[in-house]
Amino acid sequence: MRTSRLEAFSDGVLAIIITIMVLELKVPEGHTFADLRHSTGKGLLSYLLSFVYVGIYWNNHHHMFQLARRVTGGVLWANLGLLFCLSLFPFTTAWMDETDYARFPVVLFGVNLLAAACAYSVLQGVVIRAHGPDSELRRAVGWDLKGRISPLFYLAGILSAQFVDTHGKVGVIIATGCYTVVALIWIVPDRRIGRAVREFGAPD
Amino acid sequence: MRTSRLEAFSDGVLAIIITIMVLELKVPEGHTFADLRHSTGKGLLSYLLSFVYVGIYWNNHHHMFQLARRVTGGVLWANLGLLFCLSLFPFTTAWMDETDYARFPVVLFGVNLLAAACAYSVLQGVVIRAHGPDSELRRAVGWDLKGRISPLFYLAGILSAQFVDTHGKVGVIIATGCYTVVALIWIVPDRRIGRAVREFGAPD
Amino acid sequence: MRTSRLEAFSDGVLAIIITIMVLELKVPEGHTFADLRHSTGKGLLSYLLSFVYVGIYWNNHHHMFQLARRVTGGVLWANLGLLFCLSLFPFTTAWMDETDYARFPVVLFGVNLLAAACAYSVLQGVVIRAHGPDSELRRAVGWDLKGRISPLFYLAGILSAQFVDTHGKVGVIIATGCYTVVALIWIVPDRRIGRAVREFGAPD
Amino acid sequence: MRTSRLEAFSDGVLAIIITIMVLELKVPEGHTFADLRHSTGKGLLSYLLSFVYVGIYWNNHHHMFQLARRVTGGVLWANLGLLFCLSLFPFTTAWMDETDYARFPVVLFGVNLLAAACAYSVLQGVVIRAHGPDSELRRAVGWDLKGRISPLFYLAGILSAQFVDTHGKVGVIIATGCYTVVALIWIVPDRRIGRAVREFGAPD
Repeated sequence: MRTSRLEAFSDGVLAIIITIMVLELKVPEGHTFADLRHSTGKGLLSYLLSFVYVGIYWNNHHHMFQLARRVTGGVLWANLGLLFCLSLFPFTTAWMDETDYARFPVVLFGVNLLAAACAYSVLQGVVIRAHGPDSELRRAVGWDLKGRISPLFYLAGILSAQFVDTHGKVGVIIATGCYTVVALIWIVPDRRIGRAVREFGAPD
Repeated sequence: MRTSRLEAFSDGVLAIIITIMVLELKVPEGHTFADLRHSTGKGLLSYLLSFVYVGIYWNNHHHMFQLARRVTGGVLWANLGLLFCLSLFPFTTAWMDETDYARFPVVLFGVNLLAAACAYSVLQGVVIRAHGPDSELRRAVGWDLKGRISPLFYLAGILSAQFVDTHGKVGVIIATGCYTVVALIWIVPDRRIGRAVREFGAPD
Repeated sequence: MRTSRLEAFSDGVLAIIITIMVLELKVPEGHTFADLRHSTGKGLLSYLLSFVYVGIYWNNHHHMFQLARRVTGGVLWANLGLLFCLSLFPFTTAWMDETDYARFPVVLFGVNLLAAACAYSVLQGVVIRAHGPDSELRRAVGWDLKGRISPLFYLAGILSAQFVDTHGKVGVIIATGCYTVVALIWIVPDRRIGRAVREFGAPD
Repeated sequence: MRTSRLEAFSDGVLAIIITIMVLELKVPEGHTFADLRHSTGKGLLSYLLSFVYVGIYWNNHHHMFQLARRVTGGVLWANLGLLFCLSLFPFTTAWMDETDYARFPVVLFGVNLLAAACAYSVLQGVVIRAHGPDSELRRAVGWDLKGRISPLFYLAGILSAQFVDTHGKVGVIIATGCYTVVALIWIVPDRRIGRAVREFGAPD
């Protein structure tokens, strides 16, 4: 089975997820800079954070399927599982934003990030299994440091938002910090797979 | 006529349908877990069910057009008919969800599922006719058990929601069960066509 | 310049236009069949009509660009002009529907149809000019009967909605009839270009 | 790394941006021409302006990546940066429109245009660096007159809306004029790269 249509469908879904989040940005009531800062200030930052996360997933997805040559039924469903988790970003982002970064919505955003990371892991596992233990893809992924660290950060964020202090002010700041750090780690492109692509050559 | 552009357009429409349903999930009023469960609990499950259904249609559509080599005018319109039925999912899902699974909206959701199944059958028939009775596609489909069983389940769901009890509580539970069972049946990938793809080779 | 990316972009825009119209369908207040018929009855028909029109444009666009081999700057902009006209369908359809087919909104819908038809004509002219008078495309289009008749029907619809009677009841019915007839005429696939594709062979 | 998937993803995002703006057009309350002009008059013009701008970016993006043969991690992120800026158009357009072209929203629209222009410059720089100083792309871009003039117009628009007069009436008119002039300049297709495509041949 060709990978091209799976990629095209995923591109479509990711393009929509990344774009409809802007619809959640509410147009300010007034017409001054203060109105903008008041009604959209944090919203713009939340939007940026989620935009970057969807961008990261698109990049990694892109890299992984460049080395993939076979798509099985399991890959299709694991891919849909990832897309489902990512499709919840507009919802969890909007809630976090509308409650002005209240404790539980920040926890839920972390859970969403964690779920997406797990779904990506599953997808990666299924794709690798479809290609066998000696595939380029298997070797290209190797010991996936960033993929192993990220869930720990998400977990740290979730736990601090929930437990650090009673009002959840300090905990939320730590949690948001954790989520941002992971995004920054991933913006650095994945050199492992990038190297493998150059080495083994990408499928046409 | 090439199948690629028909596939690309269908991918686009399905990607949008599967993604905009999340826009129907209302952000909770409060900021606690109870608020989330109260305002989004069932909504998330309805969303998951419809997401899976669109995913199933995408998978089957993908499998069918891998073996298709000719697109006629009739195929274009039968395909648009299927897309039209699927495009109503966000609407029927939202109504079922907002009325808290009232009787008639559950019936309507079943009618929508049934209409999509019929439209898919028609599309399959038109595609097969365009390829002749001896085509790989014809043989690959063979005796389509799942395709024949599904409408019966939808019908059973529709009838029980409508007639089982006066308040529609029990009937709705049976109906929702029927709809879920069909989804589970279909998540198992379609081995018939999958086998044929390996056997005959897919078009490039 | 390749036609593939222009087609992909147009596919994306058309897929979105055809799909977001369903977002205009308002979920009924109550939960009975009467509520559905009352709040969505005509809406569903308007949606179907606009869905079919976008489908027709997608089909014709598909056929035209199958024979096109060159994309110039003028083609890009003529194509964007067509997409702009089509992108107004959700707006004009929603207005017509929400005013319960009042006179002026029906006129405006006709103007939108007419504008799209003109934009398509311009695009066709620009594409043909880019390929020269002896191109397959030029011969394939030939004497475009349906393309010449449709604007007359739109015009008839616009004029009857505006002028036939004072309250606009009869005029609106005639106008809606005109718009529906054109849709039916076009659902019959375009045999001229279809024949040419088979005769001259489509680009790969 | 192939450019095709980057183009497909960008096409998807741009198609959505250009299309969802129409959702901001509010359906008029009444059903007469006066109602339409009153509630949608300027809105339609704002929509047209932003539609044309997204169209311009799509065209230029299309031209640039026709000559690009390599996609690096930096290109992916620079491209996402451009898409982020463009994804804010629906928001800034809606605000400008809803405040009836108040001073600060017009300034913000200009800032958005300026940010998109900078992001495009960065993307162009990163793509050129990935191809080396002697690449066709480098020579094709040459001395990018339009790209250098546009930011000056945006800046002029921003400054006049902010400073020309106390009520911002005259300044806003000048600013809108500036934004429109740049759009008109760019509708003229980019002959430099177009020439290079013909000269060097486009990648298949």
